[in-house]
Amino acid sequence: MKRIGVLTSGGDAPGMNAAIRAVVRAGLSRGISTIGFKRGFNGVLMRSSSNQDDFTVLTSREVSGTVHRGGTFLMTARCLDFLEKENQIKAVENMRSLGVEGLVCIGGNGTFHGAASLKELGFPVIGVPGTIDNDMGYTDYCIGFDTAIDTAIENIDRIRDTCGSHERASLVTVMGRDCGEIAFHTGIASGAEIVMVPEIPWSIEEVAEKVKWAAMNGKNTMIMIFAEGAGSSLTSDVDAICEGNESLSGISGKYLTSSGIARIIEVLSGQEVRATVLGYTQRGGSPSAKDRVIASRLGAYAVDLLAQEISGVAVGLKGEDLIYVPVEEAMNSKIDPAAVSEMASLIGTLAGI
Amino acid sequence: MKRIGVLTSGGDAPGMNAAIRAVVRAGLSRGISTIGFKRGFNGVLMRSSSNQDDFTVLTSREVSGTVHRGGTFLMTARCLDFLEKENQIKAVENMRSLGVEGLVCIGGNGTFHGAASLKELGFPVIGVPGTIDNDMGYTDYCIGFDTAIDTAIENIDRIRDTCGSHERASLVTVMGRDCGEIAFHTGIASGAEIVMVPEIPWSIEEVAEKVKWAAMNGKNTMIMIFAEGAGSSLTSDVDAICEGNESLSGISGKYLTSSGIARIIEVLSGQEVRATVLGYTQRGGSPSAKDRVIASRLGAYAVDLLAQEISGVAVGLKGEDLIYVPVEEAMNSKIDPAAVSEMASLIGTLAGI
Amino acid sequence: MKRIGVLTSGGDAPGMNAAIRAVVRAGLSRGISTIGFKRGFNGVLMRSSSNQDDFTVLTSREVSGTVHRGGTFLMTARCLDFLEKENQIKAVENMRSLGVEGLVCIGGNGTFHGAASLKELGFPVIGVPGTIDNDMGYTDYCIGFDTAIDTAIENIDRIRDTCGSHERASLVTVMGRDCGEIAFHTGIASGAEIVMVPEIPWSIEEVAEKVKWAAMNGKNTMIMIFAEGAGSSLTSDVDAICEGNESLSGISGKYLTSSGIARIIEVLSGQEVRATVLGYTQRGGSPSAKDRVIASRLGAYAVDLLAQEISGVAVGLKGEDLIYVPVEEAMNSKIDPAAVSEMASLIGTLAGI
Amino acid sequence: MKRIGVLTSGGDAPGMNAAIRAVVRAGLSRGISTIGFKRGFNGVLMRSSSNQDDFTVLTSREVSGTVHRGGTFLMTARCLDFLEKENQIKAVENMRSLGVEGLVCIGGNGTFHGAASLKELGFPVIGVPGTIDNDMGYTDYCIGFDTAIDTAIENIDRIRDTCGSHERASLVTVMGRDCGEIAFHTGIASGAEIVMVPEIPWSIEEVAEKVKWAAMNGKNTMIMIFAEGAGSSLTSDVDAICEGNESLSGISGKYLTSSGIARIIEVLSGQEVRATVLGYTQRGGSPSAKDRVIASRLGAYAVDLLAQEISGVAVGLKGEDLIYVPVEEAMNSKIDPAAVSEMASLIGTLAGI
Repeated sequence: MKRIGVLTSGGDAPGMNAAIRAVVRAGLSRGISTIGFKRGFNGVLMRSSSNQDDFTVLTSREVSGTVHRGGTFLMTARCLDFLEKENQIKAVENMRSLGVEGLVCIGGNGTFHGAASLKELGFPVIGVPGTIDNDMGYTDYCIGFDTAIDTAIENIDRIRDTCGSHERASLVTVMGRDCGEIAFHTGIASGAEIVMVPEIPWSIEEVAEKVKWAAMNGKNTMIMIFAEGAGSSLTSDVDAICEGNESLSGISGKYLTSSGIARIIEVLSGQEVRATVLGYTQRGGSPSAKDRVIASRLGAYAVDLLAQEISGVAVGLKGEDLIYVPVEEAMNSKIDPAAVSEMASLIGTLAGI
Repeated sequence: MKRIGVLTSGGDAPGMNAAIRAVVRAGLSRGISTIGFKRGFNGVLMRSSSNQDDFTVLTSREVSGTVHRGGTFLMTARCLDFLEKENQIKAVENMRSLGVEGLVCIGGNGTFHGAASLKELGFPVIGVPGTIDNDMGYTDYCIGFDTAIDTAIENIDRIRDTCGSHERASLVTVMGRDCGEIAFHTGIASGAEIVMVPEIPWSIEEVAEKVKWAAMNGKNTMIMIFAEGAGSSLTSDVDAICEGNESLSGISGKYLTSSGIARIIEVLSGQEVRATVLGYTQRGGSPSAKDRVIASRLGAYAVDLLAQEISGVAVGLKGEDLIYVPVEEAMNSKIDPAAVSEMASLIGTLAGI
Repeated sequence: MKRIGVLTSGGDAPGMNAAIRAVVRAGLSRGISTIGFKRGFNGVLMRSSSNQDDFTVLTSREVSGTVHRGGTFLMTARCLDFLEKENQIKAVENMRSLGVEGLVCIGGNGTFHGAASLKELGFPVIGVPGTIDNDMGYTDYCIGFDTAIDTAIENIDRIRDTCGSHERASLVTVMGRDCGEIAFHTGIASGAEIVMVPEIPWSIEEVAEKVKWAAMNGKNTMIMIFAEGAGSSLTSDVDAICEGNESLSGISGKYLTSSGIARIIEVLSGQEVRATVLGYTQRGGSPSAKDRVIASRLGAYAVDLLAQEISGVAVGLKGEDLIYVPVEEAMNSKIDPAAVSEMASLIGTLAGI
Repeated sequence: MKRIGVLTSGGDAPGMNAAIRAVVRAGLSRGISTIGFKRGFNGVLMRSSSNQDDFTVLTSREVSGTVHRGGTFLMTARCLDFLEKENQIKAVENMRSLGVEGLVCIGGNGTFHGAASLKELGFPVIGVPGTIDNDMGYTDYCIGFDTAIDTAIENIDRIRDTCGSHERASLVTVMGRDCGEIAFHTGIASGAEIVMVPEIPWSIEEVAEKVKWAAMNGKNTMIMIFAEGAGSSLTSDVDAICEGNESLSGISGKYLTSSGIARIIEVLSGQEVRATVLGYTQRGGSPSAKDRVIASRLGAYAVDLLAQEISGVAVGLKGEDLIYVPVEEAMNSKIDPAAVSEMASLIGTLAGI
């Protein structure tokens, strides 16, 4: 193997640059050069007016000073066109014409789908898990998760300061799509009293009851963590709650926002509640040590496998050990429900309500 | 003078604890003991069932380990009842019955109004400027501002990472009420291309035009800072813009949110735009060195003045010098328009569009 | 079980407070009250003039607001007296007289020795691994390690900025006693070119050669990580190197400091080298999300085991799973040499020299 | 004016990149192009084998994404050769041959000397104050100071955590050369009990006495800040103290280090004392908001002045106002002794010993 490619695709995650750097340098240490494709699979399709916009040869010096940078310097984007077979075939042709003999794809589930389609065409690929959501069950860890929760708790520590000064409760929305991992870890780490996640049914009435009860027992500040996908597991009839209650006019179950939920909790509990949406701050930032180390290990391992002619797999971590599984198996692999239960139970135990 | 009081009122600001600590220790160094009133002027009204809920004698040891804590350990709250004369008279009586001979009031404009009403009744007060908005013209600086902008830029640096990866523009809403100070400083410090503030008229069309033009010139990431009060200086006819444009349906000029503005800019410019509201994260957090130092200086200075029988004033900074002015003069003092112009012009110069 | 005890002993580690909090709250959720002993095993010996100086009953409210605090609010200290049997017997008597039926001991190897001696006397103990050194082989992780490396890389990122400006190399000393874990993780995460650890023999001449070679190849900034115990694996004859070299006068192999090593590298390589000792900054600070989560899980798990009448064990993590092993087995368990080799090899691969 | 130059010289300081960026963009907004000289005055002497190593034309895009970076991307170095007249003449010739009509010199006192020598030759120069030491009296502020003290207190907050756990005192050495500004601000901001600076005579015996006394009064943790130049104002006879005291053998007044001082305090006071040297961490790191804003303002102002044909001056801040003074006057201007006294007195007041 003389030349490989690397790309980042889907949502970006802190640590992606460290993974790219590791691919490039692990390649060079084996005499393999690396081409970086830009904007995920778009770069492989090579449709820009100038090739330089699509890919670049990555030297050792070009990845200097990247290990601690957030985002991905190869940029990333979704690529709907890549769902079509003819484009996948074109991609393989493009790579072969550049002498690229294997491709390292860093990203989440969508990225692994793209990689799997290249594998079907007989092209050697390796998937590297990079998504702050940490929502892939085949691996203990996805690059970016640690930084995302560190950023979240740093901001929630701040919110707690001002909530404590004003004796308010706070509803903080965190990322995670269909997965409660960010919410659970953020919740435990920030000492949150309540966590709402898509995996576990919950009702606004019950949350409000807890807030009320905690306030009566002298707890004048509470943190509630709301996973962005937690609306899907809400069992309350919001419209029925709001109907006839003037202070809740304008809130509807159909277009329920986290600030609507905060307002309902406020009215039902009689405690002041403020809503904050952490948003895109969780995706960026200099990666934590953990993310840099794991990204470096996974990136180097991907090249090791390609050099050993092992491909069509996604790499990951089980405990401290590097592992790999077929990329189709990695796709859509779910978080262990037992882990979800342990987390949910721990939140309840530690809340001290 | 044997005993003084201290309170924090209105919105909290990082550094308030450092100011309280300085009042207490500067007092002790002169043989003056300090009572901390809780929840702003509410504590002075002493209406809780237990006195302990209203005030506490602050020893040197009780303010140990507070200089670096966010929020205010005396808690804070607005106190509408304090607008009534009879309550102000009651407050003076309460303080006299405790032997309190002077009161240090840490907060913003509303707090200074409360202090002024006590002054009118002949009670010695000192106002200490503590508000992240930095919106008081009589002083160069209000406690909390530096930490608030540091927090904002730390989060915006993160947002820029992910915007850069995805080649998106970002609209970031910062605090500041009627004042653009936070927005200007945040904008310059984060290298923002555009800043929207209440002091300067602006139109969405013009902003969108700049975004479009910058993208055409190869700038694929832009940061726009939106001061929370900037809606007031918007000159565009939002309803006219949105009318007949299906992708803008549901957005109205009457209930315009920052995400509505982001969406309009996106549609008009053809560039992806994401909105983030930094919210309460800006109010909390461990104070910056600057906030700790200035809070310490101002708190100690307030006690110096009381000990010299100077009162009825608000303390502040001009350059490196401690100053004081009559508290009524400090109230509602406005930011120098020349400074606003300099900042606005600097943003334009540095944008590099 | 109605009452248990908890203590922190040995060097402190970020996350110890989160572990104490979890013990207390997990206890309360099962109707068990917790006594916190102060200053490690000293508190159990109860020799202070006032009992309050030795222990305190920990309520749910008393552990509020501790999850994000660095250090340990129970304080910690070594206790040489606890090596004597008669004192261990006294400790058991003291605990029984307070109704304490089990003891959770949070700390490193020395702490586990103390716990093992109580086990020998038939007293139920649980060891919880808390040491920034992460030097215990029976568990994948010890509380405090993640924060320590995050702090180290944050400071090394700063050092790299100034080294880059001045085109200097930097030798940074990190903690870790006899173990290279902190140095390896810090090295990979900070993009260090060279890591010196106690587990692997190394020579100054070779390091200087690499620095020289890298500079000749256009690398004008280098980070070298020096584990505090790495002097033990140095193979060079320092006195021979320094002899007759005037610029190295005063440096001796017997009292070799990291700044002495930096100076020798500088002279041998002809490149400017600056030395920094990160020191105690690595022990403190608000714990990272990972440390807070793992400390919470381990603390709650310790109580679960005691409630199930399982004791005499140390808890830990294997992958994502909570585990326990006999406390004597946990003591002195070594890091897997294969992991050490992987790390050392990865540093070489990623250095890009 | 069609073209100017910019350089950074002497020790680097966070915010220098923001100043360079402001120079470039303020230039472009007036139709002036900017050449960046590398490694301070060395770049102007143009002695490298390749011109690219000496200078580069800075476009708007090249300064993109630099406002938040630590260090200086133009690099910096001292340049002893520049003390010689013939080299200064050569520098002017070099600049003129490139069409450079004015030079912005960012740095401290040494840099201003270089600038003054060009002024003497009739070449238009502007000095911009950039040094973490904040040791120039003509301006209220030098770029980099705020970040340096923020970094220092962040690390001291960590040290305090571990000192508190172990009930130790801590002696922390900070930068500042002959100036106590960093030490004073760091001391007040970190709640330090004692600050040792070059401006004020002090004795180890007195410090030890305070430590002893504070411990007797229940203060079990103390932070002492030691300015790196404070040895010069030490009045104690160290050799006399150490003589005959076995636990102080090896410590001499001639080669006194901060850890020697810590050890003496420990022995004299009977309290455990640990020493930490913050070192180069204080020079690097992403600049604080304040440093970015002031650097941007000063950089743009320097260009404004050149465009108005005002030169031979150093720019600075008085309060919120931009000012300039002749560069010779700026050189060696001293900190106001009254400010030093206020700081020293405030430390004593706030210590709460």
